[in-house]
Amino acid sequence: MKAAILSVGTELLFGQVVNTNAAYLSKELNSMGIDVMYHYTVGDNPARLADMIHMSFKDCDLVITTGGLGPTQDDMTKEIACQVLGDKLVEDKKVLEELEERLKAFGKDLVVTFNNYKQAMVPSRGVIFHNENGSAPGFALGDPEEKKFIICLPGPPREMTAMFKTSAASWLEKLVDSAMVYKEIRMFGIGESELETRLLPLIDGQTDPTLATYVKNGECSVRIASKRATKEEASAAVAEMIEKVNGYIGDFVYSLDNEELVQVVGRKLLEKNITISCAESCTGGMFAAALTDVPGISAVFDRGIVTYSNKAKMEELGVKEETLAAHGAVSEETAMEMAEGIRRVSGSDIGISVTGIAGPGGGTPEKPVGLVYIGFVYGDKKICKKIDRRITDRSANRRHSLLTMLNIINKEI
Amino acid sequence: MKAAILSVGTELLFGQVVNTNAAYLSKELNSMGIDVMYHYTVGDNPARLADMIHMSFKDCDLVITTGGLGPTQDDMTKEIACQVLGDKLVEDKKVLEELEERLKAFGKDLVVTFNNYKQAMVPSRGVIFHNENGSAPGFALGDPEEKKFIICLPGPPREMTAMFKTSAASWLEKLVDSAMVYKEIRMFGIGESELETRLLPLIDGQTDPTLATYVKNGECSVRIASKRATKEEASAAVAEMIEKVNGYIGDFVYSLDNEELVQVVGRKLLEKNITISCAESCTGGMFAAALTDVPGISAVFDRGIVTYSNKAKMEELGVKEETLAAHGAVSEETAMEMAEGIRRVSGSDIGISVTGIAGPGGGTPEKPVGLVYIGFVYGDKKICKKIDRRITDRSANRRHSLLTMLNIINKEI
Repeated sequence: MKAAILSVGTELLFGQVVNTNAAYLSKELNSMGIDVMYHYTVGDNPARLADMIHMSFKDCDLVITTGGLGPTQDDMTKEIACQVLGDKLVEDKKVLEELEERLKAFGKDLVVTFNNYKQAMVPSRGVIFHNENGSAPGFALGDPEEKKFIICLPGPPREMTAMFKTSAASWLEKLVDSAMVYKEIRMFGIGESELETRLLPLIDGQTDPTLATYVKNGECSVRIASKRATKEEASAAVAEMIEKVNGYIGDFVYSLDNEELVQVVGRKLLEKNITISCAESCTGGMFAAALTDVPGISAVFDRGIVTYSNKAKMEELGVKEETLAAHGAVSEETAMEMAEGIRRVSGSDIGISVTGIAGPGGGTPEKPVGLVYIGFVYGDKKICKKIDRRITDRSANRRHSLLTMLNIINKEI
Repeated sequence: MKAAILSVGTELLFGQVVNTNAAYLSKELNSMGIDVMYHYTVGDNPARLADMIHMSFKDCDLVITTGGLGPTQDDMTKEIACQVLGDKLVEDKKVLEELEERLKAFGKDLVVTFNNYKQAMVPSRGVIFHNENGSAPGFALGDPEEKKFIICLPGPPREMTAMFKTSAASWLEKLVDSAMVYKEIRMFGIGESELETRLLPLIDGQTDPTLATYVKNGECSVRIASKRATKEEASAAVAEMIEKVNGYIGDFVYSLDNEELVQVVGRKLLEKNITISCAESCTGGMFAAALTDVPGISAVFDRGIVTYSNKAKMEELGVKEETLAAHGAVSEETAMEMAEGIRRVSGSDIGISVTGIAGPGGGTPEKPVGLVYIGFVYGDKKICKKIDRRITDRSANRRHSLLTMLNIINKEI
């Protein structure tokens, strides 16, 4: 089965919203064995929306739309989906009741407006999907004889993903006759060119499983995908290929199943019951924020201290005034005193620190923007990692520092 | 001038990468008065890539591609662009030299691979764009008689945005004959339905400027856009409409020019020279990380303490054991002691704190997931804000807490 994902909304064409929906749906559809052939985005324009659905049906059986189901005047997706598949909108009693209850529950905080009621209109032949996070229902509408199917989901990502999981996915599963399995191997510390060169013997002449390399946010990954008659066959083929790939690049790999580095580190810390606290300067709390995004991490994460000023470094972590005077805040010596300091005040097993010049300003010839020191203490281990990238992008430097910190922990525990 | 943005890469169709490039380019093109009609995404498939460019040219004059310029075998965009516009690839001496220098500068850390040299091939009639953050050059290729233009940019966002700013934008400016100006008014604490109801008198019958409402990451915004013969005319029309809009919803507005709330708050703190420190529990460092993303903030941000454990709350912030025992970590009393504590230890003008249950687990009937208390102390002002949203999404709760903290600071200073 081939699918197109059609995102509706002028806000996308104006660039005010990044289209995360297309990525989410692509991942889900692929894992069900549905090939995603295209992403399209059109504005809130009925004629172009209809054109795009017709065009998608030229080589796809399934169109999934996101957006344009809301209460406002320019929300037209339902009307167009009905028009293309020859259905009409009718008022749905159940949706109407839910809508009224929902509005009532919000009480006086929400103004009940007439256009909310537009949302109770649904296609007469549609399978209606309840929206547990919003007021606009979604639906699936099919022409089984012609093998043309449209699924319409709301635009806000939280509403869309919940509706896909709870309703659309099971509706779709009935339509699918093959299974795709893919895994993404993630790694840190290797460039895309080198990665592909190493894997060339495996990539050349690939049919199934397929291998592809990617770069995202400064990290490389390899996707291994197999499409077979059953999920079991596809899984086995992927597992066999993972073994081979790992033989070539295993030293850089941190996840064989598309986990974020922070998830891997969080899980390891929890499994091994190793407590940790952190002292951050240039990342300004990003490390703590990333780690505390892992549910349940409170069992091992005690505290994080963002010491932006020298005064804070001395008061909170006991960094010596002489050290700051002799070597500066961005130095191996300060990084190590920060790491020792946070371990001491927290009593955690691991103390990790970071200090650097994130940019865009603040660099000198001796200490250029991009210079970062990471301190790590754990038992008798004391490690200082120097990063010296001549990159002035503040966000890129902060993110690279964060990943390097996580990578050190992952290697050392 | 009408444009289509064509993103190339199987990784997008697999959903492994979110397409931020389309959003970035859309914003830039719109601000230059170029109408973005479509976003398309296709895989690394030469035939479909060519089809999509031909299709775009049916009602667009300009196609901007991103991706597929790299060194690997499936990078085919250059070849296809040449094929569509009747050009051929030739080796570019300058690009080749830069490439060799770049590879040399990386030294022994990078394996110099044969496929890197594929990147030195460029269209013979193209205007070549230097890539200051990577090795793949981009280019513009035009057929001025037929008014068909293709611009090819690299896929990695950092490379693409830098190349657009330094090279592609000025090349495009010569082609454009009208000017669009738009501003985005951003606000916090109002829902989309209420927003549109309030603005209905302005939205009804709109021609130019146009008004549109959006929701993104839990915040609403209004976009006001005008397209006129000159930038000055368009700016004046937009400014006039902003006045009107502000009359209806001014109480929720924090930016009239699409600034992030954290940027507004950071700027205000710097302008007024008000120092700040923070104590975080459920946001785990997100507040400090967000604020320290503002360049120069070190002048007013002293420190942030993430006290995840009760022990850390007592030791670092002086929260009383009795308070924690009587009211729990998630309570008004603890939030206020945390805010007072961080102000005391840092000596900052503002102390702000947050403690809550982010979820997905950890809730009780008395203290459900989503319950958050924010403490704020500044001079004689002492404010506690309770948030009680019955939402179990950890990220959404953390983000909403962060925005509420920033909103309090913005209102109170």
